[in-house]
Amino acid sequence: MTVLNPSAGYRTLINTFTVEPERAEELLALLSEATQTIRRMPGFVSANLHVSLDRRYVANYAQWRSQEDFEAMLKHPDAQPHLREAAAIASSFTPILYDLRETHSVEGAA
Amino acid sequence: MTVLNPSAGYRTLINTFTVEPERAEELLALLSEATQTIRRMPGFVSANLHVSLDRRYVANYAQWRSQEDFEAMLKHPDAQPHLREAAAIASSFTPILYDLRETHSVEGAA
Repeated sequence: MTVLNPSAGYRTLINTFTVEPERAEELLALLSEATQTIRRMPGFVSANLHVSLDRRYVANYAQWRSQEDFEAMLKHPDAQPHLREAAAIASSFTPILYDLRETHSVEGAA
Repeated sequence: MTVLNPSAGYRTLINTFTVEPERAEELLALLSEATQTIRRMPGFVSANLHVSLDRRYVANYAQWRSQEDFEAMLKHPDAQPHLREAAAIASSFTPILYDLRETHSVEGAA
């Protein structure tokens, strides 16, 4: 379970992968496995893996304590093989680092 | 506060707007105002507004009870002026509808 709360002060990475629909499950499995390694790195908060309804996109919505922690992960030798594998399966990917500014939720939603 | 939980069964819209950095705040304000209308529509669960660190992107991570509820909102006469205004401020936008498949969180994170 992941909580989105602007006052937590995390950085949010939204990485959108374009993928051949028949390889979407393979990419999800690889990102899931990569997360088992990356989740132990300093500053990791969460990773949330999504697949589009048309299976042409996979998105990781990830929270990091700081931009520095996120960038240290990118350079970490244990992360790099996973990152390269994901890049090889995807047709392209667009990682964008955000701040969460506002959250509007229906009260009582799960 | 928004909770990401695959077992909730929501559909997730990630809408990524490309924007001139000097118009990012204007777009955020417009999306925030639009959410005051849209949050009252059936099936709305949450909207979460993000701005990229370089201010070239604004992203809305939104949860809906179903694809049908989301599509009904798009056609709703109260939503359409807001959607047109956002499209006019942004250089482009890419709405993609996802299912949340997996969540990995550090225990005890805020």
